[in-house]
Amino acid sequence: MAEKNIGGAGLRGQVAGQTALCTVGQSGHGLTYRGYGIEVLADKAEFEEVAYLLLRGKLPNQAELDAYKAKLKSLRSLPQALREVLERIPADAHPMDVMRTGCSMLGVLETEADFSQQDDHIDRMLALFPSIICYWHRFSQDGVRIETETDDDSIGAHFLHMLHGRTPDALHEKVMHASLILYAEHEFNASTFTARVCASTLSDIHSCITGAIGSLRGPLHGGANEAAMAMIEKFKSPDDAEEQIMGMLERKEKIMGFGHAIYRESDPRNAIIKKWAQKLSEEVGDKVLYPVSARCEEVMWREKKLFCNADFFHASAYHFMGIPTELFTPIFVMSRLTGWAAHVKEQRENNRIIRPSADYTGPESAEWTPIEQRH
Amino acid sequence: MAEKNIGGAGLRGQVAGQTALCTVGQSGHGLTYRGYGIEVLADKAEFEEVAYLLLRGKLPNQAELDAYKAKLKSLRSLPQALREVLERIPADAHPMDVMRTGCSMLGVLETEADFSQQDDHIDRMLALFPSIICYWHRFSQDGVRIETETDDDSIGAHFLHMLHGRTPDALHEKVMHASLILYAEHEFNASTFTARVCASTLSDIHSCITGAIGSLRGPLHGGANEAAMAMIEKFKSPDDAEEQIMGMLERKEKIMGFGHAIYRESDPRNAIIKKWAQKLSEEVGDKVLYPVSARCEEVMWREKKLFCNADFFHASAYHFMGIPTELFTPIFVMSRLTGWAAHVKEQRENNRIIRPSADYTGPESAEWTPIEQRH
Repeated sequence: MAEKNIGGAGLRGQVAGQTALCTVGQSGHGLTYRGYGIEVLADKAEFEEVAYLLLRGKLPNQAELDAYKAKLKSLRSLPQALREVLERIPADAHPMDVMRTGCSMLGVLETEADFSQQDDHIDRMLALFPSIICYWHRFSQDGVRIETETDDDSIGAHFLHMLHGRTPDALHEKVMHASLILYAEHEFNASTFTARVCASTLSDIHSCITGAIGSLRGPLHGGANEAAMAMIEKFKSPDDAEEQIMGMLERKEKIMGFGHAIYRESDPRNAIIKKWAQKLSEEVGDKVLYPVSARCEEVMWREKKLFCNADFFHASAYHFMGIPTELFTPIFVMSRLTGWAAHVKEQRENNRIIRPSADYTGPESAEWTPIEQRH
Repeated sequence: MAEKNIGGAGLRGQVAGQTALCTVGQSGHGLTYRGYGIEVLADKAEFEEVAYLLLRGKLPNQAELDAYKAKLKSLRSLPQALREVLERIPADAHPMDVMRTGCSMLGVLETEADFSQQDDHIDRMLALFPSIICYWHRFSQDGVRIETETDDDSIGAHFLHMLHGRTPDALHEKVMHASLILYAEHEFNASTFTARVCASTLSDIHSCITGAIGSLRGPLHGGANEAAMAMIEKFKSPDDAEEQIMGMLERKEKIMGFGHAIYRESDPRNAIIKKWAQKLSEEVGDKVLYPVSARCEEVMWREKKLFCNADFFHASAYHFMGIPTELFTPIFVMSRLTGWAAHVKEQRENNRIIRPSADYTGPESAEWTPIEQRH
């Protein structure tokens, strides 16, 4: 990781703490959660298993996983005051503002009194975040007050069920497991680091997660899958995509969903989500979106040696499952919550307040001028 | 600033960026905002003048200050949906959770569409934060829906007016100016750094400020003045204070309001707020709280060479003005908002996403075990 260092800008390459949760980009391409490669996790695990791994430190046995899923299922009821807040959020609000406000309001109503409660509050957020976004979405779009207490077996199925008003099929549930696993954790990225800075003041868990949501909202961080979707849905065919991408490259326009700050050779999440996007494409009989996406990948590699990151094929995969583009980043929140919360727990276990220094570039000293004499 | 470095823990002494806003602890004790010493600012300026200095880069002339104050005054109306959210927050909520949620909800209703709007949104928050906390406080405590559009000349007077239902006297308004100036800015402290990390993803201003509020909520950061108040109001007399402090020191209990991570010799804000606490003590005819506070200061210096920081005499000063202890940290928010927002503007001007590295301490690689075979 040879990195330029502009007077500490971005803290790139500077160690800001320890973690046992994740490695990113070792030998240029790997991603592991507590030592397990992302490939085996996304292939074999359920998202709840990975949440347990990140939050409790080990893979659960069957009894532990059953109990954990039963617990999460029991926590799906939205508090009345939170419903009433969500009903006051207009239909044109930014969905990440809804997540941020919903999380903060949940912390108002169910405040973490001390750290011994942390796991219960984290589980509650895991169970409730899909309800927060879907309740607001369905209420503001359709005027419907949905029932959030469904019997779905998984967080991903629960989300799709509330969104569409019907139990999802097995393929869609499986893709949601894989997708939520892929987005769950990524070391000291900006939103996770936000959560750790907040945790380092010994603030409560809802403050940490609310802050992290705010950082994920930034266009340099979350939202790349939404931007990728906005681009690819404009392309009419693979040839059209190629022509337009070539034009964008010529005009040096930013193309979202390619390359990565840490990975040098490839993003290990891409092959996984690409496979699922292809399966979904076949399921819906798509003849445009997947071939267009595949052509974009070819062209970007041929022209720029830029690889697809996790976000690119997520765009079409989500689209094939009928998920509106503006809900893509809230799904990221439902998933990354596990990583954020695991980092908060880790920060609390061995804490020192995060308080860096700054290079001062202002005036050495300034003389007070009475207001009448100022220009 | 010789600092220990525990594997990057806390980033102490590591430069995380540049700022022209503030120096802290140069030669062990100084504090300057854009080159102006805190002493002259707290003595001669109004808070709105300092807000202008931090946010616009220079001290305003009379016409500029008048226009700025008129603008802030015109922005005091709480949106109806925000009122309705505040009315749904229970009386026993944490006041910092109210600030965090109120700020986030404001961002839902009045979203920063692009950075050209940043100053308007910052001014709106400056004008509205006192209304948010007072509206909730008075509604949840007294069932009263207060009018937030008053004609008070300053943010501090506006706050006291809404809290007590009457125009404050000149001394109280002056103390609020000084207090808000003292708390306005403090370089890369944890809440400001939270705001900058969030800003570095190019997220919106409300996300940055919401995150910063969450970090200030932590007991290692904001809240020291509340903790100081909780301690000193238990002491019956200066002699009682001395006896109990000695006992606390013997039992190695943490005593809030003393010492500082950056200042080595003294906190320049202490002498200023102490003077005002003394004046207020005379005004109300206090014979206990101020003498008790002064004795605490003597004992801590004599026994431990620990000086009062900005928080210690703030406790009695606020108390003398009839401010409930649980609103001390929200006042900190009303003030520090200026520093946070000025840092967000600065980060945006010369941005690189803040994404540090971590020392990995977890397992090198872990072998997947099918769930039936796990223990």
